[in-house]
Amino acid sequence: MAERIEMLRALMRAKGWDAVVVTGSDPHSSEYPAERWKQVEWLSGFTGEAGDLVVTLDHAGLWTDTRYFIQAEQQLAGTGVVLHKMRVPEQVPIPQWLEEQFGTDGLVVVDGLCVSVDFAQSLPGTVISVPDLLSRLWTDRPAVPQTPVFTVDPGQTRAEKFAWLRDFLREQGCEGILLTALDEIAWTLNVRASDIEYNPLVISYLLVTLEDVSWYVLKERVEDPETEATFSILEADGVRLLPYGDIDYLGPEFRGRLFVDAATLNYQLYGSLVAAGVPLEVGTSPVGLRKSVKNPREIAGMREAHLQDGLAMERFLYWLQRSVAAGREITEWDAAVKLGQLRADLPDYRGDSFATISAYGPGAALPHYVTPHQYAPVIRDSGLYLCDSGGQYTCGTTDITRTVPMGRCSALEREDYTLVLKGHIDLAMAVFPEGTPGSRLDVLARAPLWRSKRNFGHGTGHGVGWFLGVHEGPQEFRQNLNAVPLQPGMINSDEPGIYREGKHGVRHENLLLCVRAGETEFGRWLAFEPLTLCHFDTEALELRLLDESEIKWLNDYNEHVYQTLSPHLPREIADWLREKTLPV
Amino acid sequence: MAERIEMLRALMRAKGWDAVVVTGSDPHSSEYPAERWKQVEWLSGFTGEAGDLVVTLDHAGLWTDTRYFIQAEQQLAGTGVVLHKMRVPEQVPIPQWLEEQFGTDGLVVVDGLCVSVDFAQSLPGTVISVPDLLSRLWTDRPAVPQTPVFTVDPGQTRAEKFAWLRDFLREQGCEGILLTALDEIAWTLNVRASDIEYNPLVISYLLVTLEDVSWYVLKERVEDPETEATFSILEADGVRLLPYGDIDYLGPEFRGRLFVDAATLNYQLYGSLVAAGVPLEVGTSPVGLRKSVKNPREIAGMREAHLQDGLAMERFLYWLQRSVAAGREITEWDAAVKLGQLRADLPDYRGDSFATISAYGPGAALPHYVTPHQYAPVIRDSGLYLCDSGGQYTCGTTDITRTVPMGRCSALEREDYTLVLKGHIDLAMAVFPEGTPGSRLDVLARAPLWRSKRNFGHGTGHGVGWFLGVHEGPQEFRQNLNAVPLQPGMINSDEPGIYREGKHGVRHENLLLCVRAGETEFGRWLAFEPLTLCHFDTEALELRLLDESEIKWLNDYNEHVYQTLSPHLPREIADWLREKTLPV
Repeated sequence: MAERIEMLRALMRAKGWDAVVVTGSDPHSSEYPAERWKQVEWLSGFTGEAGDLVVTLDHAGLWTDTRYFIQAEQQLAGTGVVLHKMRVPEQVPIPQWLEEQFGTDGLVVVDGLCVSVDFAQSLPGTVISVPDLLSRLWTDRPAVPQTPVFTVDPGQTRAEKFAWLRDFLREQGCEGILLTALDEIAWTLNVRASDIEYNPLVISYLLVTLEDVSWYVLKERVEDPETEATFSILEADGVRLLPYGDIDYLGPEFRGRLFVDAATLNYQLYGSLVAAGVPLEVGTSPVGLRKSVKNPREIAGMREAHLQDGLAMERFLYWLQRSVAAGREITEWDAAVKLGQLRADLPDYRGDSFATISAYGPGAALPHYVTPHQYAPVIRDSGLYLCDSGGQYTCGTTDITRTVPMGRCSALEREDYTLVLKGHIDLAMAVFPEGTPGSRLDVLARAPLWRSKRNFGHGTGHGVGWFLGVHEGPQEFRQNLNAVPLQPGMINSDEPGIYREGKHGVRHENLLLCVRAGETEFGRWLAFEPLTLCHFDTEALELRLLDESEIKWLNDYNEHVYQTLSPHLPREIADWLREKTLPV
Repeated sequence: MAERIEMLRALMRAKGWDAVVVTGSDPHSSEYPAERWKQVEWLSGFTGEAGDLVVTLDHAGLWTDTRYFIQAEQQLAGTGVVLHKMRVPEQVPIPQWLEEQFGTDGLVVVDGLCVSVDFAQSLPGTVISVPDLLSRLWTDRPAVPQTPVFTVDPGQTRAEKFAWLRDFLREQGCEGILLTALDEIAWTLNVRASDIEYNPLVISYLLVTLEDVSWYVLKERVEDPETEATFSILEADGVRLLPYGDIDYLGPEFRGRLFVDAATLNYQLYGSLVAAGVPLEVGTSPVGLRKSVKNPREIAGMREAHLQDGLAMERFLYWLQRSVAAGREITEWDAAVKLGQLRADLPDYRGDSFATISAYGPGAALPHYVTPHQYAPVIRDSGLYLCDSGGQYTCGTTDITRTVPMGRCSALEREDYTLVLKGHIDLAMAVFPEGTPGSRLDVLARAPLWRSKRNFGHGTGHGVGWFLGVHEGPQEFRQNLNAVPLQPGMINSDEPGIYREGKHGVRHENLLLCVRAGETEFGRWLAFEPLTLCHFDTEALELRLLDESEIKWLNDYNEHVYQTLSPHLPREIADWLREKTLPV
C-alpha cells in the first residue's frame, strides 16, 4: 500500500498537485461500489464501507466514522496512512483539514466521477477533476462490470413509466431528465443485472426526453445472449442503446433544459454539462418516491419472496438450535454458509441482498459486525445469537433479523431481548393519520427502551426496494427531520436493537407494509402489516415487560407464521415450529 | 364599520392607492396586540385573534382561518366585508388575491409598523409603508400603552445578561443587537409592566451594543412613581432611556453591523435601517433559547406559583361540583368569574395569563371557545365541563386545563376522557436522551388516541415563560419538524385533547419541567416533572384503557397533589380532595 501511495505522489509531483482526495463512491453514488471503484481499498488497504482518503506530498490520511475506528487501525497499521476520526466532537472534516494545510492556495485533485457536486464544491483552493485518475497507476484495474441483463415484469410497463416521466418533464418545463441512480434506472426500464454485489443493477446512465429514451449502457465486451435478447426488447420499445462512456457527449449534444438530481449526479458529469452550457434544473428525481410506493403486483411478489425466505429461515433456525443443543461445533461462519445454502435452494432466489451478519455473544454487540471467514467464534449453548440477512428474489427483496436464545440467558439478556421486541411491536402496531412521516413514528420503537435508559445508535428502519436495493429512500424511521409522509404501498424495515460492548447484542427486524386502515371523523388512517414470515422466539421473554396488546400481537403473529409456513415444511420442522409458536 | 371603510376609501382615492392591507399585529409581532393596534377590529368589527383585512375601492375582505369562520360570519354581517377562508384547500392567500386583482401594477399600502418583512415582501406590485396610516381616520385612537414599570429579580442581573449578549455580539462580529420582541426585552432588563392584556410586558425597543444599552421606552405622559423608581435603577445600571418614537433615528445614528431578528422586526423599521445603510445581520435572537431555560430561582418561583394556582383550582372545582350537584344554576361565565376571584385572592397574583376558557358540553368541542359574557350556557349535572386558564404571578406563570365530569357521562365521553389522559400521562412519563426535540415526543401523547383512530388538531404543548408570555418558544411538542432539543429547565405544556362537534370536548393539561434523569452506558437522560398541582378526576375513567404504569403515575400524581395542597386548604375542601385523590 505504501508503494501505491508513493506512486501517486510521484504523479502529484510531476503534475504539481498539492492534494488528491479519493473517495469510496462510484459515478452513481451507489451504496456499494463495484471492484473498479474500491479505490480507497486499493490505495490504503482499508475495506470499511465508509472512508475517504487524502494524500499530500507529506501526509496520507483516512477519514472514517466511529463504526470503523477499530477496523481502520488494524488495516492501516504499517501503511503510513493516519486515521482521522469523524463523528467525534474534535473531528476536522476534509475541507477544513485541507484549508489548514494549504489555505485557499492549494491545487486539490479529485476523480470527479466519484464525488458529488456538493462535496467537490466544499473543498478549498483550486479543485480540478481528473476522471479515472488512479487508472494511470492501477494497471490491472477492473473494467466497468458487465453482467447479463434481463427484464422483469413488475406490473407497470416501461412505456407507462416513460409517459409518467414525460408528464413530470412538462410540469417542470424541461426537455429531458438524466437518471444517474442505478436503482432508478433499473426501475424505469424494468431491467436487472448483477453489476454490483447484492444489488441487481446495471451500471449505466438513462436519459428520458420528451421525444426519446437513451440508455448509456454498452460496454467493451460482446454481449451474452440474455443481454442481447433484453436489448432487443428495449430497442423495440424505442430505447436507444449507447456506449456507457458516451455520456461525455451528452453536454455538447443536448438541447433544452435538463433535469438532474444533485444527490447522485457526479461532479465530472455536472461539470461537463455546465461547460457545454446546458441549462440545468437541479432537484430531486421523482423516481425515488414513485418507486417506494409498491403496486399490487410488486406487493404480491414481496409476499411470495417472504414466504420463500421464511421457509429458509425456519429451516435454518431449526438446524441451528438443534445442532448446537446436540453439541455440534458450529461457528458463526458455518451458520451463515448454511443459511446461504438454504436460500440458494429456493426457486426465485438470485443472491443475498447484503452480507449476512451471523454473530454470537459479543460479536452481536457490533451493529455492523462482519462475520470472519477464518477463526469465526463458535456458537455456544447459552446466550444470544443474532442473524441479520436477506435475499434477492425475482419476485422481491427480503431483510430479516432474528435474535435467538441458544440456551440459558442472563437476566440482562432476557430484559434486553424483551424490551427490543416491545419496541418492535409498538411500532408495528402503530395506527397513524395520513401525512405522517416515519421520522415521527421512530420514537414508538425507542420509548420502551428509553424508559429504562437504553437506546441504540442506528436508524429504526429503512425503505426496501422491489428486487432492488435493500436500502432505499425516500421514507424511513429515523431520528431526523425527514418530512416524507408514509404512503400505502411503502415497505420499511422495523429493526430496533440494544448493543452492549463485550457482552451481547439484540435486534429484531421485520419488514412492514404500509396499508390503509379506514376513515373516521378525525381523518383517514394508515397502519402496518408485517411481510416477514418467521417466528419470534418466546423462550427468552420477560413476559412482565409486555402489556396485553403486545402479547396479543406476538401470539397472533407467531400463529400467522405457523399457519402460513407449516404446510410447506417437512413434518419434523413443522412440529418444532408448532412448539415454538404456542401462545404465551 | 361600513362608514370607516368608506373613510379609508376616500383617503385611498385622494392618494391614488389601489389596496390597503391591515393586519392584526403590532410593531413587535406580539401574540396579543394592545387596543391601539386592534386595527382590524376598528375597521371591520371582527375580534378574532387571527385576521387580516384588505380594502380596495370596490371590495373589502377579511382573511381568517377555520377557527374563526363562524365568528367572522356573525361579526361581519351587514358590514359589507367578505370572508376569505384560509387553511382550506381552495384558499387564495392575500398576495395571490391582490395579484389576481391588480397583476403587478397595483399600489399596495401597508402600515409597515404592523407587518413582518416577509409578509410585506410577499405582496405583489408596488408596496409602500405608511406608518400609523389609520391614525388619520381613527381620531380617538388609543395611545401607545404606558403602565407602571417594575423590576423583578429572577436570579440573574441585567448586567450579567448584557455581558452575555456582548459575548454573542463578538462571536457574530456585530456592534449591536436590536431586540424587538417584547418578552425578550423584559427578560433582558428584568422589568415587567402591563402594557398588553395577559402579558406583563413593556412596549419598547432595546438596543444592546458592545459599549452601551439604549431602551426606547419613554412615552408621552409623565411617569408614575413606580416607573420613575424603576427607571432610576436602570439608569444606575447604565441603561440610556430614550423616547419610544426615537427608534426612527436608530438607522441614521447607528455605526457598525447590527444583529436583528427577522421574526419580530417590523417592515417599517427594517426599511429605515436598510435606507440608512446599516449593515444587518439577520438571524434568530439568542434571547429566545436562553430565556426558555429557566434558572433555579425561576424554577423555585414557578413551583410557588403552581402551589398558589393549585389552591385556587381546587377551591374552584370544589365549589363548582358541589354547587351544580346542589342544583344551583351556574353558567360558564359565572364559573370563569368565580375562578378569577379565587386567583385574585392569591398573594402573588398579577392577572390572568390568557382569557379563561370555561366550556360545558358542546362549547368544549371548540378548542378556542370564547365564553360569552351574556347568555352563557348553564353547566348541567351530567357530562363534561372543561376549564383552560392560567395566572400571572410575580413568581411565575401558570396554564392549566382540567376536564371534569359534572355527573353521569356517556360511554364515549368516558372513553375520550380516559384516552386523552392516557396520552397526557404517556408524554409526562417519557424518558429520553439529551438532544431530543419536543417534535419527536409529540407522538407519545397521540399514539393512544391514534390506536382508536381519534386525534386532535392543535399542538400538544408550548413553552411557558417565567412571569412572561404563557406561550413562548423556541421548543414545543408539535407535529412539525422543530429541531430545538429539550433542555433541563425548559417548561412546556402537555395538553392533548379530543373534540367532537356538537357533543363534547376533553383536554387535560399540566406544565412539565424538563429535568435530568441520570446517565447510563447509553448516554445522558432527561425526563419531566409536573409543576401543575391539581388532581385529575378519576370518576370518568375507563380503567381498562390504562396500563399499570399509567395508573401508578395517576395515583402517585394525585397523592402528591393532596399531600402538597391539603395543609393549605380549609378542612372541608381538604377532605373532599382526599376523596378525589384516593388511588384507583
